[in-house]
Amino acid sequence: MADTVVQVGLIGCGTVGGGVVELLRAEGDAIARKTGVRLEIARVADKDVAQAERVGVAADRITNDAAAVINDPRIPIIVELVGGTTVAKEFVLAALRAGKHVVTANKALLAKFGKEIYRTARENKRCVAFEASCAGGIPVILALRNGLIANRVSAIYGIMNGTCNYILSEMADQGKSYQEALTEAQRLGFAEVDPTLDVNGTDTAHKLAVLASIAFCADVDFSRLHIEGIEGLDAQDIAAGRELGYVCKLLGIADRTPDGLSLRVHPAFVPRTHPLASNSGSFNAVSIYGNWVGHTLYYGRGAGRKPTASAVVADLVDIAVGNGVRTFEAFHMLADQSPEPRYTPMDRLESRYYVRLMAVDRPGVMAQITRAFGEHEISLRAVTQHESPGRPADDGVPVVVLTHVAREGRMREALDQIARLPVVKARPVMIRLVEEHEEYAA
Amino acid sequence: MADTVVQVGLIGCGTVGGGVVELLRAEGDAIARKTGVRLEIARVADKDVAQAERVGVAADRITNDAAAVINDPRIPIIVELVGGTTVAKEFVLAALRAGKHVVTANKALLAKFGKEIYRTARENKRCVAFEASCAGGIPVILALRNGLIANRVSAIYGIMNGTCNYILSEMADQGKSYQEALTEAQRLGFAEVDPTLDVNGTDTAHKLAVLASIAFCADVDFSRLHIEGIEGLDAQDIAAGRELGYVCKLLGIADRTPDGLSLRVHPAFVPRTHPLASNSGSFNAVSIYGNWVGHTLYYGRGAGRKPTASAVVADLVDIAVGNGVRTFEAFHMLADQSPEPRYTPMDRLESRYYVRLMAVDRPGVMAQITRAFGEHEISLRAVTQHESPGRPADDGVPVVVLTHVAREGRMREALDQIARLPVVKARPVMIRLVEEHEEYAA
Repeated sequence: MADTVVQVGLIGCGTVGGGVVELLRAEGDAIARKTGVRLEIARVADKDVAQAERVGVAADRITNDAAAVINDPRIPIIVELVGGTTVAKEFVLAALRAGKHVVTANKALLAKFGKEIYRTARENKRCVAFEASCAGGIPVILALRNGLIANRVSAIYGIMNGTCNYILSEMADQGKSYQEALTEAQRLGFAEVDPTLDVNGTDTAHKLAVLASIAFCADVDFSRLHIEGIEGLDAQDIAAGRELGYVCKLLGIADRTPDGLSLRVHPAFVPRTHPLASNSGSFNAVSIYGNWVGHTLYYGRGAGRKPTASAVVADLVDIAVGNGVRTFEAFHMLADQSPEPRYTPMDRLESRYYVRLMAVDRPGVMAQITRAFGEHEISLRAVTQHESPGRPADDGVPVVVLTHVAREGRMREALDQIARLPVVKARPVMIRLVEEHEEYAA
Repeated sequence: MADTVVQVGLIGCGTVGGGVVELLRAEGDAIARKTGVRLEIARVADKDVAQAERVGVAADRITNDAAAVINDPRIPIIVELVGGTTVAKEFVLAALRAGKHVVTANKALLAKFGKEIYRTARENKRCVAFEASCAGGIPVILALRNGLIANRVSAIYGIMNGTCNYILSEMADQGKSYQEALTEAQRLGFAEVDPTLDVNGTDTAHKLAVLASIAFCADVDFSRLHIEGIEGLDAQDIAAGRELGYVCKLLGIADRTPDGLSLRVHPAFVPRTHPLASNSGSFNAVSIYGNWVGHTLYYGRGAGRKPTASAVVADLVDIAVGNGVRTFEAFHMLADQSPEPRYTPMDRLESRYYVRLMAVDRPGVMAQITRAFGEHEISLRAVTQHESPGRPADDGVPVVVLTHVAREGRMREALDQIARLPVVKARPVMIRLVEEHEEYAA
C-alpha cells in the first residue's frame, strides 16, 4: 500500500523546530514503514530564516512570513514552535480558522488561552494536539487522556522543570549555593540565559494547569494557581532537610481536597523514600493517581531538542492517521467543554511544615517560639537548635522546626507572629513537607 | 449530544473480569461524560456462572457458553479474560471471525499465537487490543506504539512480574530465604497458589515478547527467548550483592546488539543507582530507550483486579470511539506484518558477571580459580573470599568474583571448567551484572 503523504507547515525553527526537521529527515522512512504516513515539511517560517537553512531546509521552502505557511493550501497541519503568548496565539488561531490542525509545544499559550484555542478548533472542525507541551518527550498527556480514561484522577504530582531539578540536585549533592548551581546549569545548557520563568515556578505551573485541566475535566484559570519558585532557597535549608531525611524538589501538585481543587507549585521536602525523591538531575517525573489504576509514574526528558521533537512528531502521526481529530472531537475533557472548578484556597491547605528561623541564643527564646505555634494550634514534631559556625552571633542561631499536619492559614499567622518577636532576627523560612499521596484516595 | 452506547461481551469473569464489570458500573457515567461512549456489559460467559452473579451481573445476562456471547449480534466487542492458550485462543479467533473486535489481557496467547490472531483480525477487518497484557494498568503499549512512534527503540528493560519483585525485595530487605519470601507472597495474595509461571520467568517473557515485537517491528518467536527464573536464588547471593552495591531484580531485556536482537529474562544485579533499582515490592517498571526521546520509564501496578480492569476499559473506549481499528489498520508494527528478527545467540551476549563458588580453603586454590577465568579471557574486577560462619568447613568457603565485561559463551566454558576443579565444592552460582543502558545507543 502506498504511503499517505501529509504536508506539514512549521512555524518557528529554533531548537525544537530544528529538531522536528531533523527527526523527519532521519526517521521519515521508518515512520512511513510503521504507520503508512509520510510526513513532509512543506514550508518553514521563522523570522530568522538562517535557522531553517542551518538544519538543511531547502531555500524555496523557507519564509519569514508565518501567514504564507498558514495559508498554503497544500498544508493540513501547522506546527507552532514559536513560544510565548503573543504572536504564537495569533498564528495558532489563524491556522485553525484557515482549517488547519495545530500541533504545539506551547504550554504558556495553552495554560492561559487554551479555552479560546480549543473552542476555535472545534468551530473549525480541526484539532489541537499538544503532547510536547508537558514534560517534553514523556507521553504523559496520552497516558492521562487515553491510557487512564477509565479512572477518576485524585492527584498529579510532578517534577516538570529540569532546570529547577538540576539546580536543587546540585545544591543537595554538591552543597552549592543557589547562585552557583544556577550558573553551572547555564554553563551546561540546562538553564536559559534568562531563567526567570523556570526558577520562579511559572513554567511548572503552565504544565500543571494543562495537565490538571485534562485530569479533572476543569476549565482551569491559570491566575488561580499558587506559585512559588526556588529562587529564595538557601543551601543551609537544603542541607538541614537532607539531614532530616528529606530531599527538596520543586513540585507541581494538583489534587482534590474537601474544599475543591488545589493547584500549587512550590519547593517541597519529600521523604527520601518518596516516589519522586530519586528523580535527580534534568529529568522530569510525573505521578498520576487514579481510582482504579492506583499510582502510575512517567519519567523521562522533559525538555530538549530531540525529546520534544519526538513528542511533536507523535502528535503529527496521530493526526495524520486520523485519530487526532477523532480524539479531539469525541473526548470532552478540555477547558472549552469543562466547568470552572471550585478552588481550594491556599490557606485551607493541610500540610506538614519545615520552618527555620534565626533566633537569639538566650534562655526563654525557645519557649516564646513554641508558644507562638501553640497559639495557632500547630503542634510540633521536632525542634532543633543548630550550631551556626562562621556566622556572627548577632544574626542569631538557626532553629529548625518540623510540624505535624497544620492548616496553612494558621501557619502563616504563626509565622507572622514569630517574625515580629524581637528575639527572631529574620523572616522565618517555611518549606512544605509532602508525604507520598495515598494511592487510592477517596 | 447523546452518548453512543456500545455493547460489550465478556468471556471470563474472574478477578479481572469481575473488575471490569465493577469498573463499568461505578464509572460508566463518568466515562460517558468524558468520551461520549457508554459501555454496557451485554453478556458475560464463565464456566462458573456464580462468579458473574457475585459481581452483580443480572442472571439473564450470564451464560456458561462462550459461543452465545461471541455470536450475540448486538455485541461488537468481546473481552477475553479466560487466560491460557487453549480455549482462550479458540474464543478469540471465533470472535474475530464473527466480526467482533477483541480486547484481551492474555500475554501468553499473544506471545505464542499473536501472529495468527492479528492476521485473523486483519482478514475480518477487526482489531485486537491488549494494553492489559503487559504491565497491567501501566499504559506502556500506548506509550511504545503511539507516544514513541517517532523513535527507533534501542532497548526495553522491564520489571514486569510483581510476584518476583516482591519476593526479591523481601529476600534483600528482610533477609528471607526464597521459600520464606514466596510463602509470605502467597499469604498476602501477591503470588498464586501455583506460582510456577511467575517465578520461572515465563510470565515476564510473555510480556517481553509482546513488547519487543512492537518495539522492534519483529515477528518474535517465543521459543527463542532465553528465560531464567528466580527459583534457584540463594539469599546469601542477594546479601553478597547488596554488600557490593547491587540490587537483584528479575529483568526482561530486549536490545539490539551487533549480532541481532537479544531477548532474555533472568535475575540481574543492578547498581543501587540504576533506574530500576528502587522499584521494590509488587510494582512494575518498564524502561524504554528511544533514539530521539532518550530514556523513558513507566511505573505502576502490573497486575491486580483494579489496575488491569483500568487497562481493559481504556482499550474498550479506544475501540468504541473508532481509534482502535484505525490504529490497528494503519500501523504495521505487529507480528503478522513484521519480518522474523535475527536473534543474538546467548553465548554472544557481552556482560559483566557475579560468580560465587564454594571452594576449599587451602593455599593455591584462588590461583586455580583465577587461572580458569584467565584461560577464557575473562578479566576479574574483584575477588573476595568470604567468611562462612555456621557452615561445616567441608562445604568450602564462598569466593565471590566480579568480572569485567566478558562474552557469555566464554563465561559458561570457564564455569564448566571451574565446576570440575576438585577444590570447588558445587556448581558455581552466576548472576549477570546489568549496568544502566546507554541513553542514546547506536
